[in-house]
Amino acid sequence: MIFLRKIEIYGLEKIPIVKKGDNIAELIVRAANEEGVGIRDGDIIVVAQTIVSRAEGSIVDLRDIEPSEFAKRIAGDLEKDPRIVEVILREAKEIVRMGRGHIITLTHHGIVCANSGVDKSNVPGEHFVSLLPRDPDLSARKIREEIKRLTGKDVAVIISDTMGRPLREGVIGVAIGASGISPLWDRRGDKDLFGYTLQVTIVAIADELASAAELVMGEADEGIPVVIIRGLEYPRGDEGARVLNRPREKDLFW
Amino acid sequence: MIFLRKIEIYGLEKIPIVKKGDNIAELIVRAANEEGVGIRDGDIIVVAQTIVSRAEGSIVDLRDIEPSEFAKRIAGDLEKDPRIVEVILREAKEIVRMGRGHIITLTHHGIVCANSGVDKSNVPGEHFVSLLPRDPDLSARKIREEIKRLTGKDVAVIISDTMGRPLREGVIGVAIGASGISPLWDRRGDKDLFGYTLQVTIVAIADELASAAELVMGEADEGIPVVIIRGLEYPRGDEGARVLNRPREKDLFW
Repeated sequence: MIFLRKIEIYGLEKIPIVKKGDNIAELIVRAANEEGVGIRDGDIIVVAQTIVSRAEGSIVDLRDIEPSEFAKRIAGDLEKDPRIVEVILREAKEIVRMGRGHIITLTHHGIVCANSGVDKSNVPGEHFVSLLPRDPDLSARKIREEIKRLTGKDVAVIISDTMGRPLREGVIGVAIGASGISPLWDRRGDKDLFGYTLQVTIVAIADELASAAELVMGEADEGIPVVIIRGLEYPRGDEGARVLNRPREKDLFW
Repeated sequence: MIFLRKIEIYGLEKIPIVKKGDNIAELIVRAANEEGVGIRDGDIIVVAQTIVSRAEGSIVDLRDIEPSEFAKRIAGDLEKDPRIVEVILREAKEIVRMGRGHIITLTHHGIVCANSGVDKSNVPGEHFVSLLPRDPDLSARKIREEIKRLTGKDVAVIISDTMGRPLREGVIGVAIGASGISPLWDRRGDKDLFGYTLQVTIVAIADELASAAELVMGEADEGIPVVIIRGLEYPRGDEGARVLNRPREKDLFW
């Protein structure tokens, strides 16, 4: 029996702990082969931000950080380590909201998120925090090109993170970097069930893929940092996940 | 070869056009059997809002609608049919934002979304619009119970819709109704890769599932209104998707 509409999502369990300088593409290809999943043309490979940051050395030793007066002042209200607040401010272009223990910033990448994406989880040692990769779209492109070089296969790569969002409870997976896929799928002009033309449907397919991957990433106790999504027809492109960031002048909630 | 971490997502292609009074659970079970997917314990069945609204008769004939003065006045600015604006206002408890052709409301369900969820797509005839189901959590529970009655299988049901969101471009699938699954997965207390306890991770797993399903729903030209997600371990519960609505007093962006 053939199912035309079927997607498979594989969590790679054999990715080792990633260290600075590691070649993530190589780790992915090796794990995919060992686990019998392999890499195929058209696969979408979702990589957790945390291992990209580790491989690229986007890790900060808090013992090297001297917090500013401003960082010290607001750290009290936020009940955070002033050194972490200092790192958050250094990653920010702008503070978008503050309150109730939260600091929401516009990062230098153009992403609006909590704590500029600075994270204490999945970093070894209590003195360390991870930053978002410097240029997540470039990180995605490099991994994609390296997978192509190693396997000859044409894949899409998404760098994912989990983020809170306005108006709704809970975090979800979102795409912060992308290569080989158009993050926004413009379906205007497609017909609905009754043949009427859709007016306004531009789907953030890269965010949906990051959320789908997060289901598997979060399932294991220690987390699974790489997920392969197979069987989806997706729009090819290389605009990068930056197109998902809505600029302030177009947003009703900023 | 056995993959421990694998999810499968099946789009059911044999769901007929749904009419008022149709038993959606029956249509799902029949299509799942015809397509060889079947229904298994632990399956998560994601149903597009549009067919639930049609089955429940949540369809409005615009020829019956007399727009108020307020609806007429703002319809011009929004470049919408005044009768559609009237329906949007009737579904709303509150207008949260207006501008640039958009009207964002708090619906009587407690959901903040564009146009109170009133939609012209996937409704037959130019005079009709669909409303969100009156009580989407109840709709999900009824479908779940009916599937249990028909098959003996214990499944989770999510009613999904696609929605825009603040700060990011494009629409994504979200859960507006749920039964048999806890929409929020509280992972505080779990350990990260290095054994540290996660502090703040509550994952909106029902929204992630709706996004994963939307990947398949949107793939076919005419849309696929029912998707089965198989292989995921998820938290059981019956709080309903209403727990995903963050109240104004807890939100920094409302």
